[in-house]
Amino acid sequence: MLERKVLLTDCPDAKGLIATITNICYKHQLNILHNNEFVDFETKHFFMRTELEGIFNEQTFFEDLRLALPEKANVRLVGEEKKRIVILVTKEAHCLGDILMKNYYGALNVEIAAVIGNHDTLRSLVEKFGIPFFCISHHNLTRVEHDQLLAAKIDEFAPDYIVLAKYMRVLNPEFVQRYPNRVINIHHSFLPAFIGARPYQQAYERGVKIIGATAHFINNELDQGPIIMQNVINVDHTYSAEAMMKAGRDVEKTVLSKALDLALSDKIFVFQNKTIIL
Amino acid sequence: MLERKVLLTDCPDAKGLIATITNICYKHQLNILHNNEFVDFETKHFFMRTELEGIFNEQTFFEDLRLALPEKANVRLVGEEKKRIVILVTKEAHCLGDILMKNYYGALNVEIAAVIGNHDTLRSLVEKFGIPFFCISHHNLTRVEHDQLLAAKIDEFAPDYIVLAKYMRVLNPEFVQRYPNRVINIHHSFLPAFIGARPYQQAYERGVKIIGATAHFINNELDQGPIIMQNVINVDHTYSAEAMMKAGRDVEKTVLSKALDLALSDKIFVFQNKTIIL
Amino acid sequence: MLERKVLLTDCPDAKGLIATITNICYKHQLNILHNNEFVDFETKHFFMRTELEGIFNEQTFFEDLRLALPEKANVRLVGEEKKRIVILVTKEAHCLGDILMKNYYGALNVEIAAVIGNHDTLRSLVEKFGIPFFCISHHNLTRVEHDQLLAAKIDEFAPDYIVLAKYMRVLNPEFVQRYPNRVINIHHSFLPAFIGARPYQQAYERGVKIIGATAHFINNELDQGPIIMQNVINVDHTYSAEAMMKAGRDVEKTVLSKALDLALSDKIFVFQNKTIIL
Amino acid sequence: MLERKVLLTDCPDAKGLIATITNICYKHQLNILHNNEFVDFETKHFFMRTELEGIFNEQTFFEDLRLALPEKANVRLVGEEKKRIVILVTKEAHCLGDILMKNYYGALNVEIAAVIGNHDTLRSLVEKFGIPFFCISHHNLTRVEHDQLLAAKIDEFAPDYIVLAKYMRVLNPEFVQRYPNRVINIHHSFLPAFIGARPYQQAYERGVKIIGATAHFINNELDQGPIIMQNVINVDHTYSAEAMMKAGRDVEKTVLSKALDLALSDKIFVFQNKTIIL
Repeated sequence: MLERKVLLTDCPDAKGLIATITNICYKHQLNILHNNEFVDFETKHFFMRTELEGIFNEQTFFEDLRLALPEKANVRLVGEEKKRIVILVTKEAHCLGDILMKNYYGALNVEIAAVIGNHDTLRSLVEKFGIPFFCISHHNLTRVEHDQLLAAKIDEFAPDYIVLAKYMRVLNPEFVQRYPNRVINIHHSFLPAFIGARPYQQAYERGVKIIGATAHFINNELDQGPIIMQNVINVDHTYSAEAMMKAGRDVEKTVLSKALDLALSDKIFVFQNKTIIL
Repeated sequence: MLERKVLLTDCPDAKGLIATITNICYKHQLNILHNNEFVDFETKHFFMRTELEGIFNEQTFFEDLRLALPEKANVRLVGEEKKRIVILVTKEAHCLGDILMKNYYGALNVEIAAVIGNHDTLRSLVEKFGIPFFCISHHNLTRVEHDQLLAAKIDEFAPDYIVLAKYMRVLNPEFVQRYPNRVINIHHSFLPAFIGARPYQQAYERGVKIIGATAHFINNELDQGPIIMQNVINVDHTYSAEAMMKAGRDVEKTVLSKALDLALSDKIFVFQNKTIIL
Repeated sequence: MLERKVLLTDCPDAKGLIATITNICYKHQLNILHNNEFVDFETKHFFMRTELEGIFNEQTFFEDLRLALPEKANVRLVGEEKKRIVILVTKEAHCLGDILMKNYYGALNVEIAAVIGNHDTLRSLVEKFGIPFFCISHHNLTRVEHDQLLAAKIDEFAPDYIVLAKYMRVLNPEFVQRYPNRVINIHHSFLPAFIGARPYQQAYERGVKIIGATAHFINNELDQGPIIMQNVINVDHTYSAEAMMKAGRDVEKTVLSKALDLALSDKIFVFQNKTIIL
Repeated sequence: MLERKVLLTDCPDAKGLIATITNICYKHQLNILHNNEFVDFETKHFFMRTELEGIFNEQTFFEDLRLALPEKANVRLVGEEKKRIVILVTKEAHCLGDILMKNYYGALNVEIAAVIGNHDTLRSLVEKFGIPFFCISHHNLTRVEHDQLLAAKIDEFAPDYIVLAKYMRVLNPEFVQRYPNRVINIHHSFLPAFIGARPYQQAYERGVKIIGATAHFINNELDQGPIIMQNVINVDHTYSAEAMMKAGRDVEKTVLSKALDLALSDKIFVFQNKTIIL
């Protein structure tokens, strides 16, 4: 029976890479549904995402690819199985709510294994959708201790991605390194403007005419990780900081959901501190 | 010496087309700078645009492609030479002005061979930039007669594209058929809303909250040709039809300039009544 | 104790109207928090929305206004009480889900009295939020009979507005006249493009580069009622009609929620076939 | 004969200000065409912009206003006369070109008194439009000396506003203080992201997905002055820093032209470090 899989290849650029890879696909009688490639001319690195349909003999397919491609090539083949996520939250419902709702009506191809809050506020919302909610309070814990409890609970579910849906605490480096390019955060500003706390207050004080939201992978510099998606809305002098915060909710939730969808669809390559989205 | 050329291929879809074409490029030692392909699953048609760098032996390259590709394949190889355009105008300066200005500062890779107006209004603007202006009035002429005079003048310059920069007359079918997929028009609405005359008045009367502009190739149904690009701006109850018209100028000029740039960069395939932009 | 209310005035334009109204507010020691006015110079009609704070003696306030304003003036004073809505749905969850979720986290100042579906599909979603769901099937009923059942159920809840959150049936004129300027619909296209059924299919066939959604009040011409809000997203040749439909969900739900918020905030005047949003 | 003028009032907020001002307008038989007001609740400051039509007795009108308004009120009455600007440039033509072209076809209500460049590059473009161009080179001059030469030349023309249309030098504090809230700059980023030099290079290195432009008044902190207008465009991983720079031109020129139009239309109040646009 025909299966669909996505082949993700990246390696130092060389002549003939597209021909090499597509030849092997053709040899294996795999039909190319979509193909996107990109060469970063600065770093001379090659990226290709190939949607394939056919009968996969993964072992020989990989052998053929390994033989033909440069030694340093990264090659992955991913199927259509649902990916699993764990969501971290604090008190705000809008980003979580959008993911729960989209998952409910089938707009996200994902299994939400669990939601973990450092407050109990969102339990009842999560449980409406039959998803387990765990409250792991940070009270009387050091940051490292709290993060270890989070990690222990997260690892029970072996998620593909961890989604910070307005989780309002900074995660310590050890936690971040445990899940490289697997923690997706929504920052409620148009990064790199207004890094850190209270970005809407900062935006208000600066008198900007546009505010935004940024979904990015977490790395160990605050709000400096690879950006996946950004979007903005217009504001004007009539917006207080609080009005900006309210108006920003829709753009925050939409940007996070779309960034998550890109990750779930295996469309994101992370290279150095940037994303290539194919 | 290394040259850069764009290979444009389209044909009925078949297995292995990307491999076939990229193999031939590789055999000819042509480096692929960018490659974009698209398969329209409804019509089962394949499109590919490949930016190549190398030393081109066009004859053997085409022979190899012809042998390997399906019989019905369209294959074109275009160089980086400036394309030539003739611009048709009536009285409004904004779209013409943007093209003249962008060409002046090098943002459009084009030779403006001539501007033809059915009024003399824009002569002085055109001549500032050292470009010949011809007034071909429609007075006392039938539409067919007038269009024949236009075509005769246009053909003196053998342009690649004819740009209707707010040329406010409908061209007759004979004229249109003379230049298939080579006449680019800007329509001052978000097509297919407000086809025909006075779209801003129509938009005002309908009370829309967004207005737009549409760049499209001309075919023989009024405002029905393949759409290249569209963009919109927000309006509200404070806009009169005239205020909409004024506000629409910036979006009209930007959409037309960008559509023209796509055409000049050989990024547009026209297939049936749609554009595929790679 | 200080109350906040919104004064909504519209009447044929005359000199001194702003002074007249604001004088009366001042005389009643009502503080003006925000004031917006608009004169439609075509129809010579005046609109003003005034947010007031103070202690309201409504009877004398209205007497003063009636005496001072033209005889034909419409004057309303509305408080901050939650408005009540009934939502009509068919099978699609995204618009309903957004309203339910926003109401859950307090982003909409509304009481959702009931949801009525012509299918039972969305019962479980609605009941999660503790809101009554009624299935009123249209099977074996004429349109008029079905609409009468709907109206009877709706009237039990005496809603301020009826929200068609992807209710996929046309309502008959009698129903529409029963609730003038009180039925808010989301149409899944950028009206007036693609009126009627299957707009995404129409958009796909036309090859547009932008799709949109339109929230409007229902009147008795299909998709011709006063437009409240519109928004758009970019698409390209890679979008099938179904992909457009999926991509359109986020813009549909956002446009409907925002239009509803405008109605709930008493910011919309309907005049002839247009909205004035102050 | 009826004249049109704009009344601009700002003062500490107090009860009855709208009534007070509109009463005086009414008493003077001045018809209010448009009125916009705003109260900043944080600073308790009141702003109102009133478009008036009638026969103006400015002396008694101002006397009446002075008597009725708080002592600290700022009151200005501006007519429809064209304002005068001087434009400063370096080598890039796109922002200058858009202003020249819009002025040519009547889309900006302005007299361009002169263009001054610190290079001679743009002379021929400016002179095409019959506008005087002055090259004031900064070679062998200190910043202060150069700015003094600029100011001396500018002052010959007594401009209402000075427009920095990609003038790529920082102006010294003395120069800036000479023209408070009268120098409009276009910064080629979405401020406060990427302050300072080479913002597109910074944006490229950070891997942002949106770039923008910001028009603002100059004050004495680099890129910190009151923001008038911002706009953005989407970019992705395929954009080099240079491609971003090219793509940014259209948004830069549009934002600057629109900000200038707001200034020319007397729609901007500057208060503390923000703009209120009515």
